[in-house]
Amino acid sequence: MVSKSQIKLITSLAQKKYRQKNGLFVAEGIKVIRELLNSDFQLEKLFASEAIFDVSEDQFILAEERELKKISFLKTPQTALALFKIPQQKLEVLDDLTLALDGVRDPGNLGTIIRLCDWFGVKNLVCSQDTVDCFNPKVIQSTMGSITRVNVVYKNLSEFLQSQDLVSYGTFMEGENVYQKTLQQKAVLVMGNEANGITSEIEQLISEKISIPQFGQSQETESLNVATATAIFLSEFRRK
Amino acid sequence: MVSKSQIKLITSLAQKKYRQKNGLFVAEGIKVIRELLNSDFQLEKLFASEAIFDVSEDQFILAEERELKKISFLKTPQTALALFKIPQQKLEVLDDLTLALDGVRDPGNLGTIIRLCDWFGVKNLVCSQDTVDCFNPKVIQSTMGSITRVNVVYKNLSEFLQSQDLVSYGTFMEGENVYQKTLQQKAVLVMGNEANGITSEIEQLISEKISIPQFGQSQETESLNVATATAIFLSEFRRK
Repeated sequence: MVSKSQIKLITSLAQKKYRQKNGLFVAEGIKVIRELLNSDFQLEKLFASEAIFDVSEDQFILAEERELKKISFLKTPQTALALFKIPQQKLEVLDDLTLALDGVRDPGNLGTIIRLCDWFGVKNLVCSQDTVDCFNPKVIQSTMGSITRVNVVYKNLSEFLQSQDLVSYGTFMEGENVYQKTLQQKAVLVMGNEANGITSEIEQLISEKISIPQFGQSQETESLNVATATAIFLSEFRRK
Repeated sequence: MVSKSQIKLITSLAQKKYRQKNGLFVAEGIKVIRELLNSDFQLEKLFASEAIFDVSEDQFILAEERELKKISFLKTPQTALALFKIPQQKLEVLDDLTLALDGVRDPGNLGTIIRLCDWFGVKNLVCSQDTVDCFNPKVIQSTMGSITRVNVVYKNLSEFLQSQDLVSYGTFMEGENVYQKTLQQKAVLVMGNEANGITSEIEQLISEKISIPQFGQSQETESLNVATATAIFLSEFRRK
């Protein structure tokens, strides 16, 4: 049975301040929970309609469907919801491509970007402090478990770039055609906010401005969505 | 003022059967509406809090904020909502890359894919009949106006592929590394459903199986989201 105080705790974890206060985040669904259990993440509590996972007795709470409905953040609740501890995340050695985000706000975009980092073997993702929290339930859900394989750290992006000796690539409409550039792997790629792109403070710290050329006839100055643009840039860095 | 019957009509347009019955779809926000007005799409009615666009008197309805709230499909209603006529869409001559979708279900994914077609100059998008409707309000919203520059047609995909003399590329986990293939531009690229990929019926009609190699260390057999994978494939077709 799920207690009232547990329901209160779980629903409060929609908000960053309560996630930080409690040091916990929510994951839903068998696939995501399994990947988290098989990683370094530490389980706090598992709520499920049956004993699907091999966890200790005091960590497991049998929850009925109607109870899962109450605690779920999803339209269609899954058969399991788990609380995990928020880890201290540290950067691994920056000896390869690092991705940095300057104010990405949409949880779905961040989730997709974490999945892309996993696919393209980018170990470190550095987020500005105004980037959406990676332990937001929507982000966790859309990473599909990739969060276990990518170090996401929040930093003052300006200080981070200044402390590094790496080439930094930034994406700008007026940047050089990415298809015609020789890209260095030991570098930082900076992607900007959905509406405003990279801030002028960060722009000053970018060594190479790059862009994806537009092939269509559109006269509108459209830009690609940040997640799809990240897909194309990471593909360009990794393709041989 | 927005009449009761107008509210009823507009809210009904969330469903495909009522869009088809009335031959109308909903677009919200200044940017999307402006692009549709500047295209071949025909306006039926414009509901807005002020006379922003130059439209005929009988097409314009002054709507208060509380009224826009009632008819909007968005969490944060915009200052304008318009009804446009659903056009008869025909394929243009297939003398260049055509994209085909085999059962893409998520409105956000279809919207992103239409934007990508616009960016990469893909004029024709052929959708299987079980692909989400491109006049779904969520799709229209996420195309950001690109719907005016891409012909989206719904067809029996199997018949379409059999009627064409073009090379067809399909994306499969076990396909050839796309980075190492010489891709023909006069071709059809087929992308599959979010969960199940390309159906076996369509698989038989594919001439070239391609894939994006995975660079990460993940042991899970994850796949990329269909919209981000489409971004990378279209980039590969167009890059020089």
